[in-house]
Amino acid sequence: MKIGFLGPKGTFSQQAAEIYIDGLHAELIQFANIAELIFAVNNGKIDEAVVPVENSIEGPVNVTLDMMAWDVDLKIKREIVVPIIHNLMVNKKQKNISLILSHPQAIGQCREFLNKHYPNIPIKYTYSTAQAAQLVAEHSFSDNNEGWAAIAAQKASEEYNLVITHRSIQDKSNNVTRFIVLSQYSAEKTENSKTSIIFSTENKPGSLYRILQILHLWDINMTRIESRPAKNNLGNYIFFVDIEGHWEDDDIRDALTMIKRKTSFFKMLGSYPINSAD
Amino acid sequence: MKIGFLGPKGTFSQQAAEIYIDGLHAELIQFANIAELIFAVNNGKIDEAVVPVENSIEGPVNVTLDMMAWDVDLKIKREIVVPIIHNLMVNKKQKNISLILSHPQAIGQCREFLNKHYPNIPIKYTYSTAQAAQLVAEHSFSDNNEGWAAIAAQKASEEYNLVITHRSIQDKSNNVTRFIVLSQYSAEKTENSKTSIIFSTENKPGSLYRILQILHLWDINMTRIESRPAKNNLGNYIFFVDIEGHWEDDDIRDALTMIKRKTSFFKMLGSYPINSAD
Repeated sequence: MKIGFLGPKGTFSQQAAEIYIDGLHAELIQFANIAELIFAVNNGKIDEAVVPVENSIEGPVNVTLDMMAWDVDLKIKREIVVPIIHNLMVNKKQKNISLILSHPQAIGQCREFLNKHYPNIPIKYTYSTAQAAQLVAEHSFSDNNEGWAAIAAQKASEEYNLVITHRSIQDKSNNVTRFIVLSQYSAEKTENSKTSIIFSTENKPGSLYRILQILHLWDINMTRIESRPAKNNLGNYIFFVDIEGHWEDDDIRDALTMIKRKTSFFKMLGSYPINSAD
Repeated sequence: MKIGFLGPKGTFSQQAAEIYIDGLHAELIQFANIAELIFAVNNGKIDEAVVPVENSIEGPVNVTLDMMAWDVDLKIKREIVVPIIHNLMVNKKQKNISLILSHPQAIGQCREFLNKHYPNIPIKYTYSTAQAAQLVAEHSFSDNNEGWAAIAAQKASEEYNLVITHRSIQDKSNNVTRFIVLSQYSAEKTENSKTSIIFSTENKPGSLYRILQILHLWDINMTRIESRPAKNNLGNYIFFVDIEGHWEDDDIRDALTMIKRKTSFFKMLGSYPINSAD
């Protein structure tokens, strides 16, 4: 089994992948960005990919959602919820900070901390939190001890030999990211499943209402709804919806059959066990 | 009248602001980022702010939505829809490209072009498309004519004296961004209004369905729904909803009174004229 994650070493993606393969005989392979990672499992270069899909503060990971909708045809096999603890880290002898580096989502999650403590320090976006740590470690700071700082996981500070100056700097204490495992194959049926679908409604009054009415009629609980632009016109949306239950359950199957008929675009992402930390 | 926009010169924000003040006696003031711009109108340092809220390809501008929900208490006075045409631009004598710079939203809007033409060129995120052009103009390229490229508006290429090598490189031809004008005061009532609200439902089965049912009962057309995490728990959302009509119309007022009673958080962003290009 080859399982891909978003590198470099020290990312929350790696942490999620390690939780997932615990006990499995699998090889972890790192990828430089989410697009490459998702295409790799679609092309069969790897068996499964662990990708971030949603953070409790910053919201959806757009590239993951858009690729699942438009670019690949993959199933969700599992979800893994990982607590996100961000730290500000610098080089050992460094005193002042001239630039702060991190992934845009991490910057977004630490906005209050940054506005309060470093309102005037420029920010540089990186591909991942761990890459930010790596860049800080490689950057030679100037004679007046002015250098860069990264926002990343504690694991990254160990990996790249940096010193944490501020711990747990995210805006809310209950900051978690949901990762999903993507595969060409569906998960086996388990108790306590959820089912993920994507659909697009016609741009007519009440069209979303009618879809939710179907779920309501069949007494199905929607645990998540996320809208993304349909990319053809402002005002057209696709919806990412999670519901409780398995697609082989009678009620779910009937409701999804109806929804499929009443939507202009429909994609089934599969059923998989609900993560207990959710 | 002091009206703020997202600088530097040459941004689409500036373009939207110029469309807005056409004919008005107003002074345009540029801000370095969206947070400063929105706080400035909230603190009374400027009268109004023109901010991007939604793009037809990349979706919502998270910082604008989150600030309207949590950080300020402002009204929407107008919406302005601006067609977005992205161009790849370089320095005059430059041949090769070693780095591509732009705002994360613009990079997202040109993903297909970049994957096809520059799959291996690193990308650097900037605060705005115009800042990317400015950085390219200031960057001294190396002896082998290798330099940087920016993705930005044609206006930015004129402003910073760059040459466009590829025109209109966004993934879809009908790429538009919706800007809104934020103010401490509501707009005057006009024909053909829309009304924007924010609400949060309780995390109970069918709670969003029941809100949409209220709109359905009063025959109110919802033109937009956007979900954002409520930031306290994964699975709790706030919704940004636009409906047709003015809050002083009887049906709208009654429906909103009901919705206010049935939601755990409710915020009225005001009524304003529908942009004809919408």
